[in-house]
Amino acid sequence: MRTAVSARAAWRPSATVLAVIITLTALSLRAPVSGVFDAMGHRLPELLVYVANFVFLGIYWNNHHHLMRAATRISSGVMWSNLALLFFLSLIPMMTEWVARDYRDAAPAATYGVVALASALAFSALTRSIVRAEARPVVARIVGRDHKGLVSQLLYAGGAALALVSPWISYSLYVAVSVMWFVPDRRFARAL
Amino acid sequence: MRTAVSARAAWRPSATVLAVIITLTALSLRAPVSGVFDAMGHRLPELLVYVANFVFLGIYWNNHHHLMRAATRISSGVMWSNLALLFFLSLIPMMTEWVARDYRDAAPAATYGVVALASALAFSALTRSIVRAEARPVVARIVGRDHKGLVSQLLYAGGAALALVSPWISYSLYVAVSVMWFVPDRRFARAL
Amino acid sequence: MRTAVSARAAWRPSATVLAVIITLTALSLRAPVSGVFDAMGHRLPELLVYVANFVFLGIYWNNHHHLMRAATRISSGVMWSNLALLFFLSLIPMMTEWVARDYRDAAPAATYGVVALASALAFSALTRSIVRAEARPVVARIVGRDHKGLVSQLLYAGGAALALVSPWISYSLYVAVSVMWFVPDRRFARAL
Amino acid sequence: MRTAVSARAAWRPSATVLAVIITLTALSLRAPVSGVFDAMGHRLPELLVYVANFVFLGIYWNNHHHLMRAATRISSGVMWSNLALLFFLSLIPMMTEWVARDYRDAAPAATYGVVALASALAFSALTRSIVRAEARPVVARIVGRDHKGLVSQLLYAGGAALALVSPWISYSLYVAVSVMWFVPDRRFARAL
Repeated sequence: MRTAVSARAAWRPSATVLAVIITLTALSLRAPVSGVFDAMGHRLPELLVYVANFVFLGIYWNNHHHLMRAATRISSGVMWSNLALLFFLSLIPMMTEWVARDYRDAAPAATYGVVALASALAFSALTRSIVRAEARPVVARIVGRDHKGLVSQLLYAGGAALALVSPWISYSLYVAVSVMWFVPDRRFARAL
Repeated sequence: MRTAVSARAAWRPSATVLAVIITLTALSLRAPVSGVFDAMGHRLPELLVYVANFVFLGIYWNNHHHLMRAATRISSGVMWSNLALLFFLSLIPMMTEWVARDYRDAAPAATYGVVALASALAFSALTRSIVRAEARPVVARIVGRDHKGLVSQLLYAGGAALALVSPWISYSLYVAVSVMWFVPDRRFARAL
Repeated sequence: MRTAVSARAAWRPSATVLAVIITLTALSLRAPVSGVFDAMGHRLPELLVYVANFVFLGIYWNNHHHLMRAATRISSGVMWSNLALLFFLSLIPMMTEWVARDYRDAAPAATYGVVALASALAFSALTRSIVRAEARPVVARIVGRDHKGLVSQLLYAGGAALALVSPWISYSLYVAVSVMWFVPDRRFARAL
Repeated sequence: MRTAVSARAAWRPSATVLAVIITLTALSLRAPVSGVFDAMGHRLPELLVYVANFVFLGIYWNNHHHLMRAATRISSGVMWSNLALLFFLSLIPMMTEWVARDYRDAAPAATYGVVALASALAFSALTRSIVRAEARPVVARIVGRDHKGLVSQLLYAGGAALALVSPWISYSLYVAVSVMWFVPDRRFARAL
């Protein structure tokens, strides 16, 4: 049972939520404890983790924007998979803080993989809901088989499991996914 | 004395406020105190309370959006009942923090019911103001008798009172209301 | 030297800033220290100060929105008086926190008056800049002599000075201004 | 390989990020520690640093808005230089906090110069990407040689280096850049 509402109006607050999540992630960056140059060294892990998460969220922002432009109908499935995506992404500021502090431990590395996997699954569900809701077959053709999404999910799942071996393996896998997605999805751009 | 202004322009900042409230609620989630897996257990109540409130706010976001689409005229009554709604919803991040910490006590459970009741009453007032401001009788017909709103208000009031018996009764009732609203309001979608 | 740019596009981020300021003000509300009902009493001053500031910012949001609808041209004067207004309003979350904690003292009460006066002066400057930038004489006619703005400024200045006698006089005057503005400005609504 | 997407829709979230960054910067302002007037003096450096950063971000907001109006096509280069700009600007709330506390030391003064330089370089890269993506030669002609941008970059680099001599030299240079940009860029306004 699909509900045809203006896709543009319905999506706009999502972009705002993503924008606010990105900027709230910046709150995890604390000022160095003193004014000497050495004090900056202690914030280096925080800064690197922040950069990685900024890129992670920037990629979602980008792809979400492209997806949004392709969608013209919003079904209940679209609405709730979108909310689920925003929910998992809203955990990123907290995960950023946790990973930045305890990056040597397994638990934050594994949990990060679970959150990233859940976000990727929600994004896949969102893509599929849009394809189902969409009358125009062009969207289905564009999306095709979501190989890149599937690979991401496998890498995140692997990263979560391998955190018990070493968190560095996990972080390498997570960064690999971001590198893979860094170039925005050309499929939509080409076809629309 | 109604004031006809562009409903779309007037409502848009409300969506931003809702989006910011949702993401500020995420700030109530603190990173676990250490990097061991057990540290996550202590954050479980926080996480569950956050999920519940994310859904609670998501439902308002959703229904507010549908209501917004039906409204074409903004009277003073609409403006102020909308501000009242945003006011009560802006208490949710603080309530989330309080309930997450003192969920075994009666006071936060009862207060949550009062805030949720006030939000529900403001939403009802907003709906009625829009019906009154609207020239098109279609909106009044769509909204009809707001049985679901009334039941929600009774459950919230009951939850607030029964917190003195056990906060778990209250939380069950609050979750029941969310489940009841989980499916977005089809009335607007069908008629517009 | 006036610059004709799309007023709508230029103003929109201002509405976002106002929306974020309003919701950040909510961060000044801390959860009660424990789960007993008495713990809420200690937060009562905070809550009242928050309500007063929510109304204060809501009035600016409202009037700013009406002004925005009347403006079709943005000059440099409009741009910078608008930024000045947003600057002073951005001090409100901090002032809310300070007044909520030290409401019995003169300094926060007096400072609040200074910030409110500066905001009112910036809003007047903004109104005048818009009138000057506007080709249509209708705006000038609508705004007319800004008696209400002048009275507000006098009451804020009086409140700032009389804080040294008693902060309660100041707060009474500040609340009086809000009551005076509570009804949105009909002048624009009537003429546009 | 350019991607023609609606520039307006793609840019809008950037304006939101900038708006949220500006208001988050306000969070660096803490309420004075007590209700006596002397307590305000201790917050004076904080307030001055906040004012300077509000103006700094306001100038970017302004110029970004003008640039946004000139752009009609978004290439990948535009997208990523824009994200880089937002990244460096998102460090400003943290830098504001650090400079406000340790303004007598070299490290925050030098780091501020580096962040400001990186932001300026990102803005230049953004301008050049837009010129390249743009079909209309008018934009290239308007932007011309970006003398003002180059001078800013040199002053920021100089400020970062001279912080080791005295942070006051750095802050003078940074303020000089803001004064230079205070008047919004007339080039776009005139030609569009």
